[in-house]
Amino acid sequence: MQNLRIGLVGLGTMGAPMAATLLRSGFILSVYNRTTARCGPLVELGARACETLGELGAASDVVITMVSDTPDVEAILFGSGGLAASLAPGAVIIDMSTIAPAAAVRFAKLLAERSVAMLDAPVSGGEAGARSGTLSIMVGGERAVFERILPVLNAMGTSVVHAGPAGRGQMTKLINQIATSLNLLAAVEVVRVARAAGLNVEDTLRVICGGAGASWLLTNLGPKIAAEDFAPGFRIRLQDKDLQLARAFAGGLGVETPGLALAASLFRRALEYGLGELGNHGLYRLWD
Amino acid sequence: MQNLRIGLVGLGTMGAPMAATLLRSGFILSVYNRTTARCGPLVELGARACETLGELGAASDVVITMVSDTPDVEAILFGSGGLAASLAPGAVIIDMSTIAPAAAVRFAKLLAERSVAMLDAPVSGGEAGARSGTLSIMVGGERAVFERILPVLNAMGTSVVHAGPAGRGQMTKLINQIATSLNLLAAVEVVRVARAAGLNVEDTLRVICGGAGASWLLTNLGPKIAAEDFAPGFRIRLQDKDLQLARAFAGGLGVETPGLALAASLFRRALEYGLGELGNHGLYRLWD
Repeated sequence: MQNLRIGLVGLGTMGAPMAATLLRSGFILSVYNRTTARCGPLVELGARACETLGELGAASDVVITMVSDTPDVEAILFGSGGLAASLAPGAVIIDMSTIAPAAAVRFAKLLAERSVAMLDAPVSGGEAGARSGTLSIMVGGERAVFERILPVLNAMGTSVVHAGPAGRGQMTKLINQIATSLNLLAAVEVVRVARAAGLNVEDTLRVICGGAGASWLLTNLGPKIAAEDFAPGFRIRLQDKDLQLARAFAGGLGVETPGLALAASLFRRALEYGLGELGNHGLYRLWD
Repeated sequence: MQNLRIGLVGLGTMGAPMAATLLRSGFILSVYNRTTARCGPLVELGARACETLGELGAASDVVITMVSDTPDVEAILFGSGGLAASLAPGAVIIDMSTIAPAAAVRFAKLLAERSVAMLDAPVSGGEAGARSGTLSIMVGGERAVFERILPVLNAMGTSVVHAGPAGRGQMTKLINQIATSLNLLAAVEVVRVARAAGLNVEDTLRVICGGAGASWLLTNLGPKIAAEDFAPGFRIRLQDKDLQLARAFAGGLGVETPGLALAASLFRRALEYGLGELGNHGLYRLWD
């Protein structure tokens, strides 16, 4: 399996450490990024840098895409010089970006016409999870394809679940974002009220994280909120994008989700206030 | 320290397993409960059952109260035949109920006039935490008193924090309830959307609990929501009471808490719908 030639497109906050993790696991890796400079550190770790998507596609059996949004994935796959034209029949696309489930289904169908398989495999666990290969990965697509490329996913994640046919990985991720956004809102309100009450915020976080109020978000971002360190991590701009997708998804199912609706409206407000490039815990700044 | 004579008043969902934990740790324990039958199992474990609060007060150096709400604590302390009249000077009250912080401050002052110390020491971690002695305990009151009775608290909890003077334990607990209620709302919406989307709910919970959406609530109550097993646990009626206290507390500080406000309004609606005696995860039923 380590003989599989892997390509990875998108060396951002998540893509770059995921590429490094694949190299550490012994995979043969080509990388492509619009801003070429980002390839440098990975070339030092043994990756091949490609000048074009076409070059990467021709050199890869499996291509991972890790970009911001639906139109980015569409351009990478089907735009001029995109992967659809360069991948050999039998190749596999693993889109690990978070995009609209309906788009994931559409892209998978279009690629199938060229005998290219596609999995939608978005992730949770943040930059730290990408760096340590402990991501949570939610996979939609054909089970046989999933099983074939499972060693690639297992190199990047410790909690890898096949959620069903195409689109189901994205659906699961959008549901995950209901949890992350509400747990994050809780973390923000915990710090705000603790501070206003004159409590020691670190002690408050520690004792809450020892009980039923514990969450990944509170443990990992609570101390950053307390320190007013709002460096991303995962940007408000992208959290907003995910929550808009989640609202459309839940709304399309006819499910009332007041928690998600509130979180989505607050992140939208944060974006409008110009906080989009802060880490998502910068939601705290909305009340500054 | 195990020579301290401890009394425990209130053998409900939390109080009974906490009493059992103290007995296992070798403490001398007297118990009192309005419904006397609840004392039986603890007598079998070595507790002394008291017929009256006065009898318990006279037999105890430290008395733990674990009841539902502010008026219950007030009656136990200052009502006719209450503990204030029977405790010897130098005794300590540890109120582990969740009540209004201002009331905790007032009770501590009244008891100090009789040379009885009081700690407010509400808990988080649920019945399972009470049973296993792994509660999170948030303590307000004099530090010297806290340090003196720390072995008693350590028998019941693994995360014990002195939050400051009288009332600060209750403040910390109300802040904890912001986290539990929003994380719970997230868990409810996760299950509802996953089910509506036709996803395997167990798989969805598992993969979310492996990533940034993980929380104590989702791990512990997500599967119960999925199974529609709404046995309490912690009742909606009490979650509503806590959230009303939390809103009043945050409001008094002038802190805007839209997440808490939403959670409080939803639990209030659940109470009005007659769901008060369900476990708090029965919030799910609000949309049935």
